[in-house]
Amino acid sequence: MAEQNSTKMVGKQSIVFANPPMILAGSSIAGKKEGEGPLGHLFDTVQEDPMVGKKTWEEAESELMKEAATKVLEKAGLKNSDIRYLIGGDLLGQLIATSFGVADLNIPTLGIYGACSTMGEAMLLASILVDGGFADRVMAITSSHFAGAEKQFRFPLDYGNQRPFSATWTVTGSGAVIIVNPDLHKPNPGEKAIVVKGVTVGRIVDYGLKDSMNMGACMAPAAFETISANLEDMNVSPDYYDRIITGDLGYVGKKILIDLLKEKNIDISNNHMDCGIEIFDKDKQDTHAGGSGCGCSAITFTAYVMKQLREGAWKRVLFVPTGALLSQVSFNEGKTVPGIAHAVVVEAV
Amino acid sequence: MAEQNSTKMVGKQSIVFANPPMILAGSSIAGKKEGEGPLGHLFDTVQEDPMVGKKTWEEAESELMKEAATKVLEKAGLKNSDIRYLIGGDLLGQLIATSFGVADLNIPTLGIYGACSTMGEAMLLASILVDGGFADRVMAITSSHFAGAEKQFRFPLDYGNQRPFSATWTVTGSGAVIIVNPDLHKPNPGEKAIVVKGVTVGRIVDYGLKDSMNMGACMAPAAFETISANLEDMNVSPDYYDRIITGDLGYVGKKILIDLLKEKNIDISNNHMDCGIEIFDKDKQDTHAGGSGCGCSAITFTAYVMKQLREGAWKRVLFVPTGALLSQVSFNEGKTVPGIAHAVVVEAV
Repeated sequence: MAEQNSTKMVGKQSIVFANPPMILAGSSIAGKKEGEGPLGHLFDTVQEDPMVGKKTWEEAESELMKEAATKVLEKAGLKNSDIRYLIGGDLLGQLIATSFGVADLNIPTLGIYGACSTMGEAMLLASILVDGGFADRVMAITSSHFAGAEKQFRFPLDYGNQRPFSATWTVTGSGAVIIVNPDLHKPNPGEKAIVVKGVTVGRIVDYGLKDSMNMGACMAPAAFETISANLEDMNVSPDYYDRIITGDLGYVGKKILIDLLKEKNIDISNNHMDCGIEIFDKDKQDTHAGGSGCGCSAITFTAYVMKQLREGAWKRVLFVPTGALLSQVSFNEGKTVPGIAHAVVVEAV
Repeated sequence: MAEQNSTKMVGKQSIVFANPPMILAGSSIAGKKEGEGPLGHLFDTVQEDPMVGKKTWEEAESELMKEAATKVLEKAGLKNSDIRYLIGGDLLGQLIATSFGVADLNIPTLGIYGACSTMGEAMLLASILVDGGFADRVMAITSSHFAGAEKQFRFPLDYGNQRPFSATWTVTGSGAVIIVNPDLHKPNPGEKAIVVKGVTVGRIVDYGLKDSMNMGACMAPAAFETISANLEDMNVSPDYYDRIITGDLGYVGKKILIDLLKEKNIDISNNHMDCGIEIFDKDKQDTHAGGSGCGCSAITFTAYVMKQLREGAWKRVLFVPTGALLSQVSFNEGKTVPGIAHAVVVEAV
């Protein structure tokens, strides 16, 4: 046991898996605006109705999650009873999108919250459960909804508030992956297997920023610390990864992240990508600083990043969803907005 | 790997650990009312000031969490840098009590949410990380605060609303445990070691109840399903455990739980205990249905259950924190209140 430990724990906060768990399938359910963006043609489903046939924004988000879960099971050729555990979360207080979205699946469930870093946390915990031999198949799922998030964190939509240029646009969408024991499943013929080689659990990083309309700046320091820790723990340089993919820093946060890393003589300017920047067209869609939300990195990963890996365009990426740890209460009480970022090392093999 | 799997996964949703992780230490920080209750003399600290010297209820709760973390490190003889990961959560939207409570510890952190079942989820994930060889020492921590929870879920305190008899009183307090690799630590001389032998991850259970003032009834079906699953997966009868300890069903939920189990010919009436019932004096403290909140099961476990195990009064317990999955938004939108319960098998060895 002691020896086994030493091979899995790497550096201060990272893990390398003995038998890297496989991401068997991923699903992406996107909203209308996301469907009109540069990745629109890659999503499994584009939901044209922002209410998804429901009566409230929250129910609509739960429905997106239900669709993502159903789709990923279908793509994996599995039934809900084949999934031992489900790990999921969202941005709404007390995770109501998740609770009402996944309850019908009847899968033992672990609720998690890492703001927009939640997909990273879900994937890392799912991989730990599989690699540790505690489960053969685990679903990781997250969602966000533009209107539900505005209501939760900012202003009622009817108020028509003006958004500063540093603000990001919460992605409407839900993404899910099924992570499995690689001894039990094979990838589709002709496709590469996508595996999780390791993870880095992030710390809560607080640089004292208080602007909930500039979450990129609040989260960039957390991405900086987690990426630095990953490179150090794994003892690799940035070019070890074909892409270092942050969740939703947007244009403002991306610049800060690259600058912070440069001060440590780490240059990721050539291989950095941000899901919040990829998902919307800067010129045509005018979302200001880019996209954000638990759903942003989730559907960009499942629709675009997994495709690039499967087709061999990229061999290895560091997926780093980033979260801003605020609530309307903490914001109104004048608290800072700390950030957190979790990293997942994903490889095509 | 495949063989290792088959020994750890038990039944449909349970895990038995190969090398049971040890609960090295536990801490309990309680509020004034809790300090005046039957367990008052057992808590590490009783905080007489409900504001804990802070300006808001939320900051007060964060401070309780900080005290619980500091105390458990002190009792374990460890520094924060000795803890590889921290797993924590609370009842407030977006886990702000946790984010602001534990940030200064600078430990890589995984935020989780299972309503009042959160301590069960934290302990089960911490045990998985340790048993799987992903960490040597993990802190599991939760908190709740009466005033913060009333503000979050019900009415402003100043409103002076009348509480129905089925309502529980949210416990003000924070509890933490440090779960470690048993090969690296010994219990104190003369004391029994307390280990986590296994866990059962709960499903979301929704019987269609909608009354947020009767959470015992909302959670009892989840406790019923998780306890049934644990007994079935582990292939044991209720008397295998000296106590089956639910989190915060209170008097109403306890009766429902015992009745539901009796319909399946499972009788736990002789060895069932509920933290929400133990923590307050029914006659003198008038909390109606009992105590509740993430802090309720956490401090009852660390102050009372661990003592009973350490001193040999009990040999083996099933600890089943129970959560009601609602938010003020889901409640106001007329949604049901689903429940969830996670079980942890704890033994003195």
